[in-house]
Amino acid sequence: MLPRRPLAWPAWLLRGAPGAAGSWGRPVGPLARRGCCSAPGTPEVPLTRERYPVRRLPFSTVSKQDLAAFERIVPGGVVTDPEALQAPNVDWLRTLRGCSKVLLRPRTSEEVSHILRHCHERNLAVNPQGGNTGMVGGSVPVFDEIILSTARMNRVLSFHSVSGILVCQAGCVLEELSRYVEERDFIMPLDLGAKGSCHIGGNVATNAGGLRFLRYGSLHGTVLGLEVLADGTVLDCLTSLRKDNTGYDLKQLFIGSEGTLGIITTVSILCPPKPRAVNVAFLGCPGFAEVLQTFSTCKGMLGEILSAFEFMDAVCMQLVGRHLHLASPVQESPFYVLIETSGSNAGHDAEKLGHFLEHALGSGLVTDGTMATDQRKVKMLWALRERITEALSRDGYVYKYDLSLPVERLYDIVTDLRARLGPHAKHVVGYGHLGDGNLHLNVTAEAFSPSLLAALEPHVYEWTAGQQGSVSAEHGVGFRKRDVLGYSKPPGALQLMQQLKALLDPKGILNPYKTLPSQA
Amino acid sequence: MLPRRPLAWPAWLLRGAPGAAGSWGRPVGPLARRGCCSAPGTPEVPLTRERYPVRRLPFSTVSKQDLAAFERIVPGGVVTDPEALQAPNVDWLRTLRGCSKVLLRPRTSEEVSHILRHCHERNLAVNPQGGNTGMVGGSVPVFDEIILSTARMNRVLSFHSVSGILVCQAGCVLEELSRYVEERDFIMPLDLGAKGSCHIGGNVATNAGGLRFLRYGSLHGTVLGLEVLADGTVLDCLTSLRKDNTGYDLKQLFIGSEGTLGIITTVSILCPPKPRAVNVAFLGCPGFAEVLQTFSTCKGMLGEILSAFEFMDAVCMQLVGRHLHLASPVQESPFYVLIETSGSNAGHDAEKLGHFLEHALGSGLVTDGTMATDQRKVKMLWALRERITEALSRDGYVYKYDLSLPVERLYDIVTDLRARLGPHAKHVVGYGHLGDGNLHLNVTAEAFSPSLLAALEPHVYEWTAGQQGSVSAEHGVGFRKRDVLGYSKPPGALQLMQQLKALLDPKGILNPYKTLPSQA
Repeated sequence: MLPRRPLAWPAWLLRGAPGAAGSWGRPVGPLARRGCCSAPGTPEVPLTRERYPVRRLPFSTVSKQDLAAFERIVPGGVVTDPEALQAPNVDWLRTLRGCSKVLLRPRTSEEVSHILRHCHERNLAVNPQGGNTGMVGGSVPVFDEIILSTARMNRVLSFHSVSGILVCQAGCVLEELSRYVEERDFIMPLDLGAKGSCHIGGNVATNAGGLRFLRYGSLHGTVLGLEVLADGTVLDCLTSLRKDNTGYDLKQLFIGSEGTLGIITTVSILCPPKPRAVNVAFLGCPGFAEVLQTFSTCKGMLGEILSAFEFMDAVCMQLVGRHLHLASPVQESPFYVLIETSGSNAGHDAEKLGHFLEHALGSGLVTDGTMATDQRKVKMLWALRERITEALSRDGYVYKYDLSLPVERLYDIVTDLRARLGPHAKHVVGYGHLGDGNLHLNVTAEAFSPSLLAALEPHVYEWTAGQQGSVSAEHGVGFRKRDVLGYSKPPGALQLMQQLKALLDPKGILNPYKTLPSQA
Repeated sequence: MLPRRPLAWPAWLLRGAPGAAGSWGRPVGPLARRGCCSAPGTPEVPLTRERYPVRRLPFSTVSKQDLAAFERIVPGGVVTDPEALQAPNVDWLRTLRGCSKVLLRPRTSEEVSHILRHCHERNLAVNPQGGNTGMVGGSVPVFDEIILSTARMNRVLSFHSVSGILVCQAGCVLEELSRYVEERDFIMPLDLGAKGSCHIGGNVATNAGGLRFLRYGSLHGTVLGLEVLADGTVLDCLTSLRKDNTGYDLKQLFIGSEGTLGIITTVSILCPPKPRAVNVAFLGCPGFAEVLQTFSTCKGMLGEILSAFEFMDAVCMQLVGRHLHLASPVQESPFYVLIETSGSNAGHDAEKLGHFLEHALGSGLVTDGTMATDQRKVKMLWALRERITEALSRDGYVYKYDLSLPVERLYDIVTDLRARLGPHAKHVVGYGHLGDGNLHLNVTAEAFSPSLLAALEPHVYEWTAGQQGSVSAEHGVGFRKRDVLGYSKPPGALQLMQQLKALLDPKGILNPYKTLPSQA
C-alpha cells in the first residue's frame, strides 16, 4: 500500500476557486493603472487655491530667462504646453489642482543638481513628482511650483545577484523593477496597488507601506542608501551595504519627508529572494472578532511563511462588484480576509496552510473560502483587495482616512461612523492591512459636502488620537493632512521638524505647502 | 509496509555532536558577561587624555552646588566615591580611561530631564552610559564628563501579547528583556554577545547589529518609538505603532547617534514571535570560497528559516580553545560556519536543513559538521562564535576593525594583513556576520605598539574605502573611530552631521569628543 499523502487542502477549498465557472461574474481585466481612472469628459477639478484657504508664498515666478536656462540644462526636457501640463497638475483622486506652467524632465542627477541650484538662486519653488499616485496631494503643485518629474530617470544602475541589492534611479516604476528583479530570482521588498505607475523615488520619499510590509517591514529597514539634493548640492548617502554605522544615518531623514527636505535621485534597496511558492487564501468571516482570531491563529500556525494578512468588509466587496464587475469568489460574508504565504518549499507551505485552514473552518472562524497557487489566480484574488481604492473612486466623492490603530479597535470607528453619518454618507467602508494595524477608512458621497466633512473631521482624528493611533499610517501628510499632524505628534516634535526643514531647505522652495503644519 | 520517513539528518552529523564524549575538551561555562573580563591586579589603563591628542573643551566643572542640585534631583543616586567610579571610567576593552568624578543614577525620564536641564544651564558635559560594553569608547568619559547611567532605569512599561510590542526603559538589560518576552512567546529582534550586560538604550543609541540582523534586520526597522532628551526637553516619539507617516521620522535620527544628539530614556520595539524550532549547525569548510558557496546554497535551500550565518577562521578556534578552553566540536578546518534556522514547524525545518547538509557534504563544500536542536547544545555551539571577542581580549592588546565589505572580498584583508604584518602581530583573525557582509578583523599583540598601529592604519581604512566598504559596520564611531569617518562618508554628509549636532545640542554637552570628527 502506498503511503497516504497528508491532506494538504481541505476539500471545501476546491469549491468556488477563482476561475471556476459561476464563481467569478466576469473575467478580471489587467490591474488598473493609477492615474487613468477618470474618463474623458469628467468635470474639471477645482483649483486647490480656490477650494482651500492657502496663500502663495513669495517665491519668484518663472521667467523667459529661467525657461532658457532650463532648456540649456535639460535640452528637450522642458514642458510648457498647457495641455501636457493638465494631468501633472491634478492629483490621482482628482480633488486638487495646481496651475504650474512648467514641467522639467531631467535624465540624470547632474541635471537635477543644475535645476535645483538655479531654482535655489532664483527662489523658485519646486514640486517633485514621481508617478503622481499619492493620496494626500503631496505630488501636485498647489500654485505655480515648477514640476520636477522623475519620469525619465528610469535606469537600473546595478544589481548584485548574491546580495539582492538593487541600485536604480528614482523614476523607475515599481512594477518594472519588480519584473527586473524577479527575472533574477528576487522580489522588491514593497508592493502597492499603484505599482504600475508609482516611482521608487516617490515610494521612498513617502515611506510607502503597502502589501508586503507585514513580512519585509518598513523602507527605513530595506533602503540602504540614497542620493538626495536640496540646493543643488549632492548628498551622497548611496551605500550598498547592509550595515554601516559611520555617523548619523542621514538617509533616514529623507525617507518619508515627501520631497520637502531634498529630492531623491537614486535609491539603493535590499531585495529579498523570490519565494518559490506563493499561496493566497481568500476567506469569509462571520464577524470582526473572528477576523482578529483568524489573524492570531494564522500568525501562530503559518509563522515565517505568512506574508500578508489583509481584510475588507462586505461593503467593499459590494463596491468592487458593482463598479469593477469583480465577483466574490466566496459566499457573501460580513468580512473577508486575504492571507498570503511565501516560502521556499511548496510542500511544506501547503501543509502548513492546509492545517491552518482546516482549523479555521473547523472552529467556525471562517465560513467559506477559496485559494490559489498559480500566478494568474493569485493575481485575481489580490485584485479584489488591491482595486478597492479604484472602486471607491468610482462611487463618488471619497473622504479618505488612513489610520494606525490598536488592532482590537480597528473596526470600531467604521461602525461608529455608520451610526453617526446615517444617510448623509453613501457608503462607509473599512479595509486594509490588518496585520500592520492599518485601517483604510473611506466614506463616499455623491459630491463634496462641507457639512459631511464637518461631521467627519475632527471627529475621526480625535477618535484616533484617543486610541494613541496615527492619523496617517502610510499615506503620508502631503497637502491634505498637514494641519492634522498635531493629533499624532506632540508640539516638540513638530517644532523639531520645522527646524530640520529650515536647516535643509532654508528658502523653503522644496515642495512648499506640504508635510508641515501651515501655521508655523 | 510503513512509509519511509525522509532522511532528516545525515548520519555523519551525529558524530561529534556537542556534549558527546571526547568532542568537547571541557564543559563550557556560562556565557561570559561583558565588563568582567579583567582579573584583579590587571595593570591600570592609561588615561585617554594622556595617550591620545585630545583637548578638553571649555565645559564647566562640577561644583558642590551642582552636587547638591543632583542630590535633590536623584536622592541617593549621586556617586562620587572614587573606587565606585573606577569601573565606569574604563571601557570594556580596557584601553580608554576617563576621570569623571560623578556618576548619576536616575530612575525616571523626569529625573533625566531635570539633570539635563541643569547640565545644559551650567554647561556641564554628560556621558550617557548603559552597560558599557561598546567597542569604540563611546560609553566612557574622555575627561571629567558626568556619567549618566541608565542602570536603574530598568522597568518594562508594557508588552502587547498580540502585536509583540515591548515598551521599556532604556536601562533594561538585553538578556533580561529576552527572558521576559520569551516567557510570552516572543523574542527580541536583536541578540549580541554582550547581552548579559548591554542595555537596550545603548543598543538603540549605537544601532547595534548582532546575531539576528540577517533575519530581523536593523533597529531602524524594528524600533517603533523613542523618548529622548537633550537640553531637558522631552521629545516624545514613543509611539507603539507599526506604521506612522505623520511627518519626519525623528526617532531615526537618534538611532545610532551614540548619545550625541539626545539621551534615549524609553524604547518601543517590535518583537518577532518565538520560533518553535531552532537548529544550529556548526560546520568545517576547506576554504573561503567554500564558505561563500555554502552561504549561497543555504540561502536558497533554507530560505525563510535561515536566521544566522556566521563564520570564523581557524585561528579564532585556536584562541577560543587556548584562552577559554572550549574545544572544537568538529575536525580542524581552515574555516568554520555556524548556521542557525528558526521556524514554526520542527519537522519541516529538519527536512530543509537535512537536505541542505546532505548537499553541502556531498558536494565538498563542508568537510565535517555537527548540529544541535536542544537549547543547551545550541548555546554551546553559539558560545564558540560569541566568545571570540573575549578570547581575543585575553590574547593581548587587540586592534579591532569592524568592516562592511562586499562578501566576495570579505577575507582578502585578513590574508593581506597576515603577509603585511608578519611576526609583528601575534595573531590576525577574521570572523563575523558573513550573511550581512560584516567582517570583524582583529589583530593581537603583546602590548600596544605605535609602529604596529602605523602598519595597520590608515592601510585598513584605505583598503576598505577602496572596496566602497564601511569602516564601522556595527560597532559605531565613539571616541576611537571619529577621525576615520571620512573613509566612508563624503564631506557633505559630515557637514550635515555637524549641523544636526549644532541644532540638537547647541552647547555640545552630550557625549562630547565622540562620533563626529574632531577637526570640525
